[in-house]
Amino acid sequence: MILTYNTTQTLVKDDSLEGRRLHFYDKNEQIPLVNEGIWQVYRGTIQLSQLSASGEEILLGWAQQNAFFGLWFTHLDSYQAKALSEVYLKWYSKSEIESSLQLTQTVLHQVMGRMRQTEALLAIAGLKRVEERLQQLLKLLKQEMGQSIHEGTRLNVRLTHQNIANAISTTRVTVTRLLGDFQKQGLISLDSDRHLIIHH
Amino acid sequence: MILTYNTTQTLVKDDSLEGRRLHFYDKNEQIPLVNEGIWQVYRGTIQLSQLSASGEEILLGWAQQNAFFGLWFTHLDSYQAKALSEVYLKWYSKSEIESSLQLTQTVLHQVMGRMRQTEALLAIAGLKRVEERLQQLLKLLKQEMGQSIHEGTRLNVRLTHQNIANAISTTRVTVTRLLGDFQKQGLISLDSDRHLIIHH
Repeated sequence: MILTYNTTQTLVKDDSLEGRRLHFYDKNEQIPLVNEGIWQVYRGTIQLSQLSASGEEILLGWAQQNAFFGLWFTHLDSYQAKALSEVYLKWYSKSEIESSLQLTQTVLHQVMGRMRQTEALLAIAGLKRVEERLQQLLKLLKQEMGQSIHEGTRLNVRLTHQNIANAISTTRVTVTRLLGDFQKQGLISLDSDRHLIIHH
Repeated sequence: MILTYNTTQTLVKDDSLEGRRLHFYDKNEQIPLVNEGIWQVYRGTIQLSQLSASGEEILLGWAQQNAFFGLWFTHLDSYQAKALSEVYLKWYSKSEIESSLQLTQTVLHQVMGRMRQTEALLAIAGLKRVEERLQQLLKLLKQEMGQSIHEGTRLNVRLTHQNIANAISTTRVTVTRLLGDFQKQGLISLDSDRHLIIHH
């Protein structure tokens, strides 16, 4: 779904918008990916993943505010991007990025961020113990999508146990059990919206 | 070890060298990493990895000709870079990169390459069956460090079974067994230098 956003004052006021059209996608929608350009997240969270030949969904990361994503950045088949929340995206063509130092620098900065995230997920995948993988994933999520609140850090996206299981190569059942353990130990809790809170 | 390379004609003739000093490291040497700048590979292969808290070496990728690597690109602790062959490196400071459109574009292009490689390794790590992980790793290595020869593709770096085991989260023993199976099936072979050849 495409809409030109001109009703909400906050968005129009934002200098970085430069009159660029905002594309809206609802929660759980797949984002179309084409070769000619890349998306930038204006608001919301995108989940990037791959469907393996045997049908497993392999989590590759998340794109949040200001991050770029698209086929330009990948060589994988069955690469997919899904909205984890309501999202607003901006579209850039490759040629407009390549001809501007400022845009190239912005993209470089953001790609480095995605690179660090992917590398952190790879380091987590390399850990032998599943409990250690989950602990390190929570630490990464805290950095990537956490907002400080009184009790600790609240993740601003609601992840399903299956999402988490895909990220650390385990089953949903194991994630449910381990999160239950962490909750009993007082390491985490859920707020009324079922968003995860990671305690101090 | 640092040396100014001015004896080999091939190197001096190369335009891209721009009189920049080449730093030489021998096979198996650790490359020093500092915050102020990044390395670019002029010749040879670098292996990037992390030592986890429990002492496991987690493979994060390889940097080959023209690729950049350094602490600028990572947030991980115990990040390390090791020469897998004799290597020649060039050094760039952050500020010189940030002030040049051409250098920024080059770095962006190369970081995207590293990003794709890291993502491919992450997709491999997410596969359940170890045999499938090894098959996909060989496919990636073929792309990343393969040279076409008569029988198929020869990897231009000699990887130990332990290197490969670290890359796909399994044991050295399993890698040895699976590579033996692949050899019997005629999928791979070793040349006289013990470099892996992946058949057509």
